[in-house]
Amino acid sequence: MKFSFDASYQILERTPGVLRLLLSGLNDSWVMNNEGPDTFSPYDVVGHLLHGEKTDWTIRIRRILDHGTAMPFEPYDRFAQFEESKGKDLLQLMKEFEQLRNENLVWLKSLKLNEDDLDKKGLHPALGEVTLRNLLATWVVHDLTHIAQITRVMAKQYKEEMGPWPEFFRILSF
Amino acid sequence: MKFSFDASYQILERTPGVLRLLLSGLNDSWVMNNEGPDTFSPYDVVGHLLHGEKTDWTIRIRRILDHGTAMPFEPYDRFAQFEESKGKDLLQLMKEFEQLRNENLVWLKSLKLNEDDLDKKGLHPALGEVTLRNLLATWVVHDLTHIAQITRVMAKQYKEEMGPWPEFFRILSF
Repeated sequence: MKFSFDASYQILERTPGVLRLLLSGLNDSWVMNNEGPDTFSPYDVVGHLLHGEKTDWTIRIRRILDHGTAMPFEPYDRFAQFEESKGKDLLQLMKEFEQLRNENLVWLKSLKLNEDDLDKKGLHPALGEVTLRNLLATWVVHDLTHIAQITRVMAKQYKEEMGPWPEFFRILSF
Repeated sequence: MKFSFDASYQILERTPGVLRLLLSGLNDSWVMNNEGPDTFSPYDVVGHLLHGEKTDWTIRIRRILDHGTAMPFEPYDRFAQFEESKGKDLLQLMKEFEQLRNENLVWLKSLKLNEDDLDKKGLHPALGEVTLRNLLATWVVHDLTHIAQITRVMAKQYKEEMGPWPEFFRILSF
């Protein structure tokens, strides 16, 4: 599939609503459990998405447009939410994420990016040169894979209750 | 996490709405592409969920309650949707799934299953003895893992557009 701004936008605008529908009102056992040491619960993932919305995606887009490869991106803190989410419940995190995402998408649209803009390059601190197109595609994939992660983490909570069935579910071993 | 009827119901009742919000109105590139030969597209997964709703979950619950281990489950056809979905668009499949799921959940609740019922056993044609509790937990996990699959399949469509980023996304190699 070739990159398309509209197709990307379709995913980015859906994510907050999907999370809200998927996670609102669930028992804590579904949303607060993780996959083991150093892994994320669904609650942690929402905090992680919120943090990225504040400090990562739009800042990096701006950096590419303003500085190209002259000024590398800041490294991203994948564990910042463990501190930042403290004292906030899931619903609050989801609402903040939804509001920030909506604002960010209004801003993104206002840039009216053309093909030349999408070819512009920035400098990732670990990966080296990346294009704005790469960054936007990765934003979309980041949303989708974290929804996949959330549902996988939830599914694993029931592994012990499935009797012999887990052998038919390859995904439970990931 | 211990099995709970209410916690299970929370997931089963959400799935049709989550799918509708996630998939309605998307470009065909998101919903009709798969992960390679003999894999499912999001469209195929919805057809698969619909087929399960018609021929699998409730029939097997009934079978356990009526016959115990005396009459094994019918084998489940994991590829039936390739035939059954023909001529139907995604929205139609999602609507049929939502309606059938709602009907099945009304029926499920009407059974007023107690702990003794959940301990009742049936015979899986490949896995052997399973309890009704195992079956219900597996129904829930089946929903969740197929949402995980759908979002993973969608994410993979953009792998080529991410430049060097896929190496940070373990899930894209599954």
